[in-house]
Amino acid sequence: MARESHKQKLLTEGLRVVHERGYGGASVRDIVAAAGVPHGSFTNHFASKEAFGLEVLDLYYARVQDVVLKTLRNDELPPMKRLRGYIDDVLRQTAKGGARRGCVFGNFSAEAVEGNEVIRKRLVEILDELQGSIEYCLKAAVKAGELSAATKTRELAGFILSSLQGAILFSKAYRSVASIERFKKILLASIATG
Amino acid sequence: MARESHKQKLLTEGLRVVHERGYGGASVRDIVAAAGVPHGSFTNHFASKEAFGLEVLDLYYARVQDVVLKTLRNDELPPMKRLRGYIDDVLRQTAKGGARRGCVFGNFSAEAVEGNEVIRKRLVEILDELQGSIEYCLKAAVKAGELSAATKTRELAGFILSSLQGAILFSKAYRSVASIERFKKILLASIATG
Repeated sequence: MARESHKQKLLTEGLRVVHERGYGGASVRDIVAAAGVPHGSFTNHFASKEAFGLEVLDLYYARVQDVVLKTLRNDELPPMKRLRGYIDDVLRQTAKGGARRGCVFGNFSAEAVEGNEVIRKRLVEILDELQGSIEYCLKAAVKAGELSAATKTRELAGFILSSLQGAILFSKAYRSVASIERFKKILLASIATG
Repeated sequence: MARESHKQKLLTEGLRVVHERGYGGASVRDIVAAAGVPHGSFTNHFASKEAFGLEVLDLYYARVQDVVLKTLRNDELPPMKRLRGYIDDVLRQTAKGGARRGCVFGNFSAEAVEGNEVIRKRLVEILDELQGSIEYCLKAAVKAGELSAATKTRELAGFILSSLQGAILFSKAYRSVASIERFKKILLASIATG
């Protein structure tokens, strides 16, 4: 039980540290200190920093998936309202703490350097799934007549996901979510006329 | 003369290392080794790693500005052709070496953590100037009748810059410029109908 609790602390506090400082910028020492557990606890629970990185990525994705289920994949809401709800949640999350942290997926993408192939591949799987959830919402919007029947939903979903990540990236540089507000406004207006 | 040459090597090779590994991931030791100069040379020429980071950022921006002058701000070309030319150059640059490096501005944005305020502020100045160059091109496009007179050129320029950065960010995660091709295609199509 105690061990399980240490692992939970390492993941929860580790995610916070990785989110703030990046994967490369967060040392095992930092993570252990933030979790307030003995140093040996890390090696007991994770075979490597990479193994930890994968679990942290999945913990973050689980949180994002909660939002996806309430928004993009929530069949009880009108499709375009779901898309707006998803972007609004990104706005709220990104604004926390002064728009300093960005999104873990974007941060990991920027750090996707040589030698982290396992993490990079998992990241790509997650981004593909997220794109699939946006596409799911766009298809529903086409079906409901909220988007033109000519919409290339798969391509547009990929465009939305990467453009949103770019807006989040700018929020880090500018310490402001204005880039995400602008993205939302222009995207929704251009889809509406599309 | 020899000292000047060492400084040039530190900046040129240092930029390469920073581009590949990120600012935080490139140690002074790495930079000195890549430049093939004595370690003391770094401290002779740069008061700190931050001072080096600022000069590296400006060296990269000077290269980008060369492209901007040939494309976005090139009054001899039709405006939309300039915008396409700019994105095409990003495509070529990003493809080099297997789409692993991304853009230095995006990488620095992702790393814009606490304690690098001087670099972050310089980065924001550069991003604002780049947005201004895109806006310059869009205004010319409106004037030439290539874009609707209702186009909010300033807002759209910001949207284009951050969305392009998002597409470049994805090229790092996916090791492919497909995200930038998709950005280009959807952007140009949506502007055309706008």
